[in-house]
Amino acid sequence: MIFERYDRIVFAGDSVTDMGSQQPVGEGLFENVGRSYVRVLENMFASYYPEVFLRITNAGISGNTSRDLLERFDQDVVSLNPDWVSICIGINDVWRQFDSPAILDSHVLPKEYESNLTKMIEKVKDNVKGIFILSPYMIEPLREDKMRARMDEYVEICRKLSNEYGCIFVDFQKMYEDYCQIRHSAYIAWDRIHPNQIGATLMAKEFLKYCDFDYHHEK
Amino acid sequence: MIFERYDRIVFAGDSVTDMGSQQPVGEGLFENVGRSYVRVLENMFASYYPEVFLRITNAGISGNTSRDLLERFDQDVVSLNPDWVSICIGINDVWRQFDSPAILDSHVLPKEYESNLTKMIEKVKDNVKGIFILSPYMIEPLREDKMRARMDEYVEICRKLSNEYGCIFVDFQKMYEDYCQIRHSAYIAWDRIHPNQIGATLMAKEFLKYCDFDYHHEK
Amino acid sequence: MIFERYDRIVFAGDSVTDMGSQQPVGEGLFENVGRSYVRVLENMFASYYPEVFLRITNAGISGNTSRDLLERFDQDVVSLNPDWVSICIGINDVWRQFDSPAILDSHVLPKEYESNLTKMIEKVKDNVKGIFILSPYMIEPLREDKMRARMDEYVEICRKLSNEYGCIFVDFQKMYEDYCQIRHSAYIAWDRIHPNQIGATLMAKEFLKYCDFDYHHEK
Amino acid sequence: MIFERYDRIVFAGDSVTDMGSQQPVGEGLFENVGRSYVRVLENMFASYYPEVFLRITNAGISGNTSRDLLERFDQDVVSLNPDWVSICIGINDVWRQFDSPAILDSHVLPKEYESNLTKMIEKVKDNVKGIFILSPYMIEPLREDKMRARMDEYVEICRKLSNEYGCIFVDFQKMYEDYCQIRHSAYIAWDRIHPNQIGATLMAKEFLKYCDFDYHHEK
Amino acid sequence: MIFERYDRIVFAGDSVTDMGSQQPVGEGLFENVGRSYVRVLENMFASYYPEVFLRITNAGISGNTSRDLLERFDQDVVSLNPDWVSICIGINDVWRQFDSPAILDSHVLPKEYESNLTKMIEKVKDNVKGIFILSPYMIEPLREDKMRARMDEYVEICRKLSNEYGCIFVDFQKMYEDYCQIRHSAYIAWDRIHPNQIGATLMAKEFLKYCDFDYHHEK
Amino acid sequence: MIFERYDRIVFAGDSVTDMGSQQPVGEGLFENVGRSYVRVLENMFASYYPEVFLRITNAGISGNTSRDLLERFDQDVVSLNPDWVSICIGINDVWRQFDSPAILDSHVLPKEYESNLTKMIEKVKDNVKGIFILSPYMIEPLREDKMRARMDEYVEICRKLSNEYGCIFVDFQKMYEDYCQIRHSAYIAWDRIHPNQIGATLMAKEFLKYCDFDYHHEK
Amino acid sequence: MIFERYDRIVFAGDSVTDMGSQQPVGEGLFENVGRSYVRVLENMFASYYPEVFLRITNAGISGNTSRDLLERFDQDVVSLNPDWVSICIGINDVWRQFDSPAILDSHVLPKEYESNLTKMIEKVKDNVKGIFILSPYMIEPLREDKMRARMDEYVEICRKLSNEYGCIFVDFQKMYEDYCQIRHSAYIAWDRIHPNQIGATLMAKEFLKYCDFDYHHEK
Amino acid sequence: MIFERYDRIVFAGDSVTDMGSQQPVGEGLFENVGRSYVRVLENMFASYYPEVFLRITNAGISGNTSRDLLERFDQDVVSLNPDWVSICIGINDVWRQFDSPAILDSHVLPKEYESNLTKMIEKVKDNVKGIFILSPYMIEPLREDKMRARMDEYVEICRKLSNEYGCIFVDFQKMYEDYCQIRHSAYIAWDRIHPNQIGATLMAKEFLKYCDFDYHHEK
Repeated sequence: MIFERYDRIVFAGDSVTDMGSQQPVGEGLFENVGRSYVRVLENMFASYYPEVFLRITNAGISGNTSRDLLERFDQDVVSLNPDWVSICIGINDVWRQFDSPAILDSHVLPKEYESNLTKMIEKVKDNVKGIFILSPYMIEPLREDKMRARMDEYVEICRKLSNEYGCIFVDFQKMYEDYCQIRHSAYIAWDRIHPNQIGATLMAKEFLKYCDFDYHHEK
Repeated sequence: MIFERYDRIVFAGDSVTDMGSQQPVGEGLFENVGRSYVRVLENMFASYYPEVFLRITNAGISGNTSRDLLERFDQDVVSLNPDWVSICIGINDVWRQFDSPAILDSHVLPKEYESNLTKMIEKVKDNVKGIFILSPYMIEPLREDKMRARMDEYVEICRKLSNEYGCIFVDFQKMYEDYCQIRHSAYIAWDRIHPNQIGATLMAKEFLKYCDFDYHHEK
Repeated sequence: MIFERYDRIVFAGDSVTDMGSQQPVGEGLFENVGRSYVRVLENMFASYYPEVFLRITNAGISGNTSRDLLERFDQDVVSLNPDWVSICIGINDVWRQFDSPAILDSHVLPKEYESNLTKMIEKVKDNVKGIFILSPYMIEPLREDKMRARMDEYVEICRKLSNEYGCIFVDFQKMYEDYCQIRHSAYIAWDRIHPNQIGATLMAKEFLKYCDFDYHHEK
Repeated sequence: MIFERYDRIVFAGDSVTDMGSQQPVGEGLFENVGRSYVRVLENMFASYYPEVFLRITNAGISGNTSRDLLERFDQDVVSLNPDWVSICIGINDVWRQFDSPAILDSHVLPKEYESNLTKMIEKVKDNVKGIFILSPYMIEPLREDKMRARMDEYVEICRKLSNEYGCIFVDFQKMYEDYCQIRHSAYIAWDRIHPNQIGATLMAKEFLKYCDFDYHHEK
Repeated sequence: MIFERYDRIVFAGDSVTDMGSQQPVGEGLFENVGRSYVRVLENMFASYYPEVFLRITNAGISGNTSRDLLERFDQDVVSLNPDWVSICIGINDVWRQFDSPAILDSHVLPKEYESNLTKMIEKVKDNVKGIFILSPYMIEPLREDKMRARMDEYVEICRKLSNEYGCIFVDFQKMYEDYCQIRHSAYIAWDRIHPNQIGATLMAKEFLKYCDFDYHHEK
Repeated sequence: MIFERYDRIVFAGDSVTDMGSQQPVGEGLFENVGRSYVRVLENMFASYYPEVFLRITNAGISGNTSRDLLERFDQDVVSLNPDWVSICIGINDVWRQFDSPAILDSHVLPKEYESNLTKMIEKVKDNVKGIFILSPYMIEPLREDKMRARMDEYVEICRKLSNEYGCIFVDFQKMYEDYCQIRHSAYIAWDRIHPNQIGATLMAKEFLKYCDFDYHHEK
Repeated sequence: MIFERYDRIVFAGDSVTDMGSQQPVGEGLFENVGRSYVRVLENMFASYYPEVFLRITNAGISGNTSRDLLERFDQDVVSLNPDWVSICIGINDVWRQFDSPAILDSHVLPKEYESNLTKMIEKVKDNVKGIFILSPYMIEPLREDKMRARMDEYVEICRKLSNEYGCIFVDFQKMYEDYCQIRHSAYIAWDRIHPNQIGATLMAKEFLKYCDFDYHHEK
Repeated sequence: MIFERYDRIVFAGDSVTDMGSQQPVGEGLFENVGRSYVRVLENMFASYYPEVFLRITNAGISGNTSRDLLERFDQDVVSLNPDWVSICIGINDVWRQFDSPAILDSHVLPKEYESNLTKMIEKVKDNVKGIFILSPYMIEPLREDKMRARMDEYVEICRKLSNEYGCIFVDFQKMYEDYCQIRHSAYIAWDRIHPNQIGATLMAKEFLKYCDFDYHHEK
């Protein structure tokens, strides 16, 4: 596995990352780390690699756009001295364009999104072992859907920046598209965004593919 | 307007009709009639036709399938001696097929749906001035969506039975499909089923088209 | 319709405007815009004119007199750069004179009321497309009622200032007086002030008369 | 004073009598007796006549019409073996005619009201020292108000039956009409029905006029 | 009656005065004035002298000793420009000596009590129409009770200062002692301090004796 | 110690015994046994005699008079097959005579009290190792207090019956009288009945005097 | 994988299985299935084998001993017609012996435990595809611990019966013992019984070993 | 007894000391002093030595390590001018090493612990009559348990410092080890740390051994 004993991984993001975690950052005992894919990951690491003590920190806050996350990135991510950083942002940048079409200043357009994400990457790239860029997504297999189509533009920005900066790119959009060939989005999330625990597990499973994670590992 | 002074209209249905109404039936003071299209209709009748005293009764219960509604139809609808009956059922018949695919006994298939709806119509058709069949719907313009496609089968059953029995057919599915050409479903309902107040108003507006409702009526 | 795509309308007022809206101003998702005539208006605009994206902002705060509203007018109205401003204030100016007769400093007398309202109009008149003055009211058809009689003085001030400044004057007092010829005030509001949803719809209906609103509009 | 040591007085009525009393009947410790004029009366009796131990029982239930009260009269009043009975009912009989005009079966018309009240009097008249009939009322000085005018018909029925049966008639309607010459109804009750503590005190004061109550009594 | 139209009376005190009033001072609508003797007084004034509009302000705060009240006296009493001031303090000064005997710094001894009360009187005596000194009390008829005996020392200080400064002295201790000849303290207050509504009425009745209050007054 | 391994002791009583215990009987885990002297006893037994496993059952119910306790005695005490029974009842029999003087049927007079207590003793005396009669009490050192005086009559009945039936008599009244020579009742219970934890400890200490309890016992 | 499309698996047990599931049985939407290893299993099945639609039913109830479970087994397990049954019971049988040593009738001793478990197996063995026996456990690596030692007796009964009846035996005790070589029990459960989400994942991981579950399965 | 009239004893510590006490320090009325051994001690002092008025102050805060306690020691302990100080700290210093192994900065290692404790002793040693050092503990008789073994190191530091500074050392670890020879830790604390009321009593009993406390003392 790519992570080493005592590595600290900070997961930045919005409600999809947050899901009830302690604000602004949560880790350790009780429900501090929330109920999102971040906790499923912590459960998997601790269960399959008990001898590798990883420090998992949830820095997600519900409702955040990339603009919001950038504003608190120094405080909530950089200052924690993470060994690895994971960023999953952009859903609200897009969503507001569709659920609040007349509130223009709540929309974060692709150009700003790219700028915001670039700044975040720049802030940490020299001080961490690796950066995960987790794509925003809509749990919708039909690309003709206008919001899905818009989301795809943001996914592509993630892919492009990941390539430029050598980040690890996790394509949640693609993962959900595949999953929806078998089960309908209603099985995971009635609003096509906030996953239930099955969705959280799917996202953790996808994340683990990029971690050299061995399910049959024996300490 | 087709309704006359002191007419009682009973709206049977599921959560889309219910939306917080008193259980099992609600009417009159306070929030008894809930917050769905039923209340918007009551507001419209009372505001534009104050001299026509209509009795609006909400008999919707969240989560009901046509199987559930049929079971309580005598008690919650027939026994109230309505002058008009409105039935809006079927969404949960379909939804469970997609969000609970392995719980087979929660699925109400088209054949049973047609049978259930027929029985309800039969129970009241000879004793009322008119029956409204409000189609189930998914606020989704893409017909390729599997759940939307399935829902369309149920909409067609509604249309067919309305024709056979001379019911007034209100096609919410068509209304929402048109609306989604302009605004995304996220503007109305994140889960594509439960409308916000704008959706409730859209549904009331559609219903009124079949009531010979005159916005410029003067008493 | 007089409103254009992306116009922002800010509704300033007291509890009649507020009715549960986010404090100090609310708009957009969830229940932020409250449950008053403001939400009914938003529902109507979005349902009958879906292609005209209006931004509806509720700046009502329960309990406000014109004195209170003036104090926060720069912050809660002017600074939002509205295209249109609607002001509905004065009920509490009058009410306190009757429910708290010995607390003299809670009474806002006609002279101060006129001054306060004038200042608000002056603050925005040069920067907006139009100003709506919505009259305060008491849902009471008998003009001999002392509080109704007092309220009428304030309504007249609204009418006079609307004329002077070219504001659109919406006479809620007249509307309710007419309505009470048919239904008793108890049908709308037990306290003759805070309307239920039917009253909110009546007020929205009245407002729309001054907006060149076409119920049969086709985009 | 007309009451004697250990007399039990049972006050039957609706929300105006109830006001938070224990259901279905309340007396004694804590807040069991509610916060209506009944408690003010108990306070007055205990403060001015401490040596006369009266048992005060509140049998009011919110929302009751005379029809509802008659139905529970045997259980909640007669079976308690009162020495004195006080009945204050009728407000909801009238109110529903104005706030729920289309729900005809919620209206208790004058003829039924008279019948209901007569039956109650008949049930206790031979077994008690005296019966108080407290008139229903609307805190509204203008008799042209349609609900006030209707209420007056019920007040007259109370007066008539009191005369026929030798009951003590307490005219709350007249008392409030007089009071409203000086203070507006908003000072007592925003809905013109449910009094605040000042109104409760006014009603107790009126009641005491018929009790040969001496404020300067010395034991 | 000694009070004139629009007089403002401010009641300063501890929990016996406070009883749920708005903090730090309460008056007017809703439950702002609390449930103590202050509200009973307001009810009596408004019911028996409706034409005299008195402004009743409750400045009691639970748990206050004379030390606490002195500290906030300028802010909560003097700055309100009262026409009349009523002070009821000292119970907690004594109580802590018995329920917290080892927490010496919570005890306010007689010397300090006299000094505190004197300072309060001095602060307002030249600017008001009159000052009421309401004695602290223990609802206990047996003077041998150690706390009662101690309380009596504080009552005497009140009496003495009232004489010196020409304040109106209301002796609650004497009133309760008399009442307890007939009913046990358990009828009024299980803790012999915090009265129920009967006790509040007794205290108001006692207060009114010093106000030239006429129960048979006709406006 | 008089108790043997696995002995079950059932404590019957009112609120003084109950204090939050599970209803109608509580024992074992969590807060089931309540917070009264019963729990202090359990704590003492388990701490000083850990090798003697006693089963402590709290059968107290708040508000019970001896009449109430007798009615449930078979169900809540006898049917549990206790090895020892403790009865502490009578406070409410007396209290109601003073706090509810006009509700005569809530008073349990000495004659009935003696009868009730006798019946309880008779029900268990042949099947238990011993019966504890814990006296009712008022935490009041002055015997002239009318309620204290009345309580003393009930204490004497307890003493008499204990003698007749060979029960172990624990005189809480005497214990509290002694304690009040040093500290005021306000230190233990503001209402002179419901003890705080110090009072609960005092009562447990008194109970232990009759158990041959050795604080210096070594297993 | 051993499970086939539409197989229903019912998990019977105590709080370790229950963890907030709907009572008495839960499945499907929302949090109905609780937060125990049962949900982790459902998440894993749905994520790694999306094409195999399994019906997962949680029949755990907190606090159950084998005696309690046997009593409701027909109703809550057999009548559901499961394809597979999983039983995890016995922890409370043991625990009560240590936390409630004097409440002898709450202890379920090994002999009764074996009998209870045998009866459950007998009830379903002829009608299901397979039975899982999940051992009770204490998250305690030191076998000298008295409760751990006692628990081991129950684990052995599970092993023995599994052998006799051909059930699939999952040894949670052994799994936790191994895990505790690396991490302390405090990391999983402060009470050494109720696992956090990491423990739930460990238990699911152990269960999956007996299901022919392929983490790299591709549909 | 070693304590004298009006002595103030301040108990500093973590959740074991705190248990619901007022924050940051609690004493006197109501539940201010919490439900830990501190309250049991107060109960014992007040019950067995009523004539010695001790002031018991609880300065425990849940979750504190010695690092946290040191930081607030001046404010919460020294500034209170105690006559005696009791310190019970260290459990969380150890616990975090086992329940949060990867959050290294939450671990307080022995060296820092000794330093922290030394600083606290130094701060008060010259101004108090005596210092109690109450050992941290784990309610676990098996010394092979890794957390117990670690805790023992901290206990030894306490013992060593107590010797050096002449503090009174109370060995809770030893006390619990002995107790667990007879009853299992599950009888006292499911998490082996937070005692129930029996554990609180055991700790108070142990503390009293060092106070020259005479259970048979007569004032």
